[in-house]
Amino acid sequence: MTQTDILIIGGGPAGMVASATSRQYYPDKSVTVVKKTEKSLVPCGIPYVFGTMLDSPEDDMIPCGQMSKKMGVKLLEDEIIEIDFATKTALGSGGEEYRYEKLIIATGSVPKRPGIENVDAPGVFFVPKDPDYILMMHAKVEAMETVAVIGTGFIGVEIAGELAEKGKKVHLVGSRLLKHAFDPELSDYMEQKMLHDRVTFHKDKRTSRILVDEAGRARGVAFSDGEEIEADGVILATGYRPNTELARKSGLSMRQYGTIYVDEYMRTTQPDVFAIGDCAEKRHFLTKRTVPIMLASTATAEARVAAANLYKINLVKSFSGTIDIFSTVIGDTCFASAGITEEDAAKQGINTVSSTVMVDGKHPAKLPNNHKQAVRLVAMDTSGIVIGAQVIGGTDMGEMINILGVIIEKRMTVYDLLNLQVATHPLLTSGPTSYPIVQAAQNIVVEHISC
Amino acid sequence: MTQTDILIIGGGPAGMVASATSRQYYPDKSVTVVKKTEKSLVPCGIPYVFGTMLDSPEDDMIPCGQMSKKMGVKLLEDEIIEIDFATKTALGSGGEEYRYEKLIIATGSVPKRPGIENVDAPGVFFVPKDPDYILMMHAKVEAMETVAVIGTGFIGVEIAGELAEKGKKVHLVGSRLLKHAFDPELSDYMEQKMLHDRVTFHKDKRTSRILVDEAGRARGVAFSDGEEIEADGVILATGYRPNTELARKSGLSMRQYGTIYVDEYMRTTQPDVFAIGDCAEKRHFLTKRTVPIMLASTATAEARVAAANLYKINLVKSFSGTIDIFSTVIGDTCFASAGITEEDAAKQGINTVSSTVMVDGKHPAKLPNNHKQAVRLVAMDTSGIVIGAQVIGGTDMGEMINILGVIIEKRMTVYDLLNLQVATHPLLTSGPTSYPIVQAAQNIVVEHISC
Repeated sequence: MTQTDILIIGGGPAGMVASATSRQYYPDKSVTVVKKTEKSLVPCGIPYVFGTMLDSPEDDMIPCGQMSKKMGVKLLEDEIIEIDFATKTALGSGGEEYRYEKLIIATGSVPKRPGIENVDAPGVFFVPKDPDYILMMHAKVEAMETVAVIGTGFIGVEIAGELAEKGKKVHLVGSRLLKHAFDPELSDYMEQKMLHDRVTFHKDKRTSRILVDEAGRARGVAFSDGEEIEADGVILATGYRPNTELARKSGLSMRQYGTIYVDEYMRTTQPDVFAIGDCAEKRHFLTKRTVPIMLASTATAEARVAAANLYKINLVKSFSGTIDIFSTVIGDTCFASAGITEEDAAKQGINTVSSTVMVDGKHPAKLPNNHKQAVRLVAMDTSGIVIGAQVIGGTDMGEMINILGVIIEKRMTVYDLLNLQVATHPLLTSGPTSYPIVQAAQNIVVEHISC
Repeated sequence: MTQTDILIIGGGPAGMVASATSRQYYPDKSVTVVKKTEKSLVPCGIPYVFGTMLDSPEDDMIPCGQMSKKMGVKLLEDEIIEIDFATKTALGSGGEEYRYEKLIIATGSVPKRPGIENVDAPGVFFVPKDPDYILMMHAKVEAMETVAVIGTGFIGVEIAGELAEKGKKVHLVGSRLLKHAFDPELSDYMEQKMLHDRVTFHKDKRTSRILVDEAGRARGVAFSDGEEIEADGVILATGYRPNTELARKSGLSMRQYGTIYVDEYMRTTQPDVFAIGDCAEKRHFLTKRTVPIMLASTATAEARVAAANLYKINLVKSFSGTIDIFSTVIGDTCFASAGITEEDAAKQGINTVSSTVMVDGKHPAKLPNNHKQAVRLVAMDTSGIVIGAQVIGGTDMGEMINILGVIIEKRMTVYDLLNLQVATHPLLTSGPTSYPIVQAAQNIVVEHISC
């Protein structure tokens, strides 16, 4: 029997941050994390395991919970298979009983299994955040010459790009690239950058079947229009679903997309039970509807809120809702997005105005390593409140998107942005006369809203 | 006689942005900019003229007002020597008379002349934003082997660094580096990075005299303690003062530090007369006192406000005061600062708490080009409102400081930052579990404020 004050189920970013933060806030309380495997992967680093930037998958593994261990957190390898909220106990797969005062569920997400024929054939891979699986998959994919990647979200696009860098022939199958993060104009630009002579993009094709050889092994895919392509293996990057079987069968109240209901303090419907990260409900910052957004940064923010509120309410989840905020790199170009696209806004009945500007990323432009920057702002047409932004440029755009995240979170308007106080420097940013966030805001004011 | 609807005096960043923006808002109004020289320098690019990154000073010259010309702005070379507000006329140095409906004064700033003996000796240079002067100075400095740079603000530090890169022996004289932007801890780190075997830092020395040879040419400097150093030339980077003689003698109401009084719409005390940029008063975001902050980004923000409000009041200068926000690069390391330092806050009687964290700039850290990031947050001790930030890291920190600028401008607290919604990506940012702005905020909450 293991007795602990705070029990955390799951050792991903949410669980680990919750454990370290709990010890920071309550140094007198014991904290135990139960996780399935000893090692952990940096989840968004997984695509880079397949490319040239890391020497081996082990380079993406973090010596799990170094910080947490330093903070005195106990890490145990086990799988919780039952929780009894009445007696405040949880049961491990090997029969171990865990008693807790406070429980945090951080069970994350697992790959969706699309309804495709032969999806379980050898040579078909998902992309779970499971170190042992990724190690096995990496060894097998290394040996392949041609790989079909199904799915054009971040993971699909990144893995396809990395495999191509590694010298493999890649078939990428899906709708336009990152369609929930970018409006068509920017998505098309990404397509140009991405499409490497080793990547064939089968745009708007639906995969209906995995083709198998006589031994039952994957040998390609068939599309719904009958076209077939050959490949040595197939990677399904078709999204994730919350890992919430345990929560559901334990009797927690659930929400749409299989998420666990949580309030603004990350509390579930059971006293002393919290849920955080991919398994917990997310409400959209604009519509307040439940949305299937899964982000490590959101997960860790929720972990900090849960930890602060474990014993008494100290801290509300102060953001007004979850903002989709992403970034990625293709070649030397960063693509990033925050908030809603114009296309998605239209679907929600929100009238928007937008402007896209392109400027030099250094000033004067003759300085070395100048990279063009494109910034697109999406604002509500009457209030001018900024609700979305998309950026393309050098690697510094990975932080520029976080300026835009704060702008969206604080409901700033295009008028506010006309006066944005920014640091500009010849070697670091665009010029003060052309700073692209300000320029795009000014275009919207002049062209659409008028002063 | 030149008749124009909108007359702008000065062709720096403020004047040029005001001219283009005026045409955007009022396409029916004629706009004329009167400036002293045809060409313009990117002001913050001047130090890089002396280094290895640009081939010649011409590379830092912008084809002045390309954007403004495209917008139909008339650019004239002249110097305004008199303004008569009653008749709405201005007089050029060659006798040309300008009649206007609205006037914008954007006369910028000029180098301060410190009270040092022999300051006018040949071989002593200031750093004005004057292309002809910089061309002349560049040619002379190129020929020198040893240069003394007086002043340890941004311009002094950057010029010293660039001259050293160019292979010259440099004496840098002044107080600790960038002392108004960085607390001692970070300033010291910068000193280590900066101090190149070709730069000798004469810390806390006061220059009392320029040493001259028999011909009266500069041959070094003498400090107030009697020490003398030899140099082929001396560069005085000892700050700037508003260029406001014309405004003062025309009868505008003036404020501290020789600035022109302006209200929140950038209006002076004279009807239809606006002032923007380095020549206009700045009020500090925390104390609301007049402060000598001169920044191109502030200047262009003010230009946009003035343009919007020329004919009717449309747009308040919505920021609550001017934030000092700067960035620079030394070697491959970016140093940036926003808001107030702890040292300066203490002088203003503001009690602060702070935390400095250091993290890896990529995750996992084994990815190529990982650069350590240090982030220091300064917050008010009771409210937790963030009033200052200092960062060190790779070139992406040039945009990270702008996240912190928005955080300070929107008066966000360390509690808000615990839940900051940011995009993280292995190749672009630190990990979601360690994002340094969030970590520093959490340390402040736990260690100083407590939940």
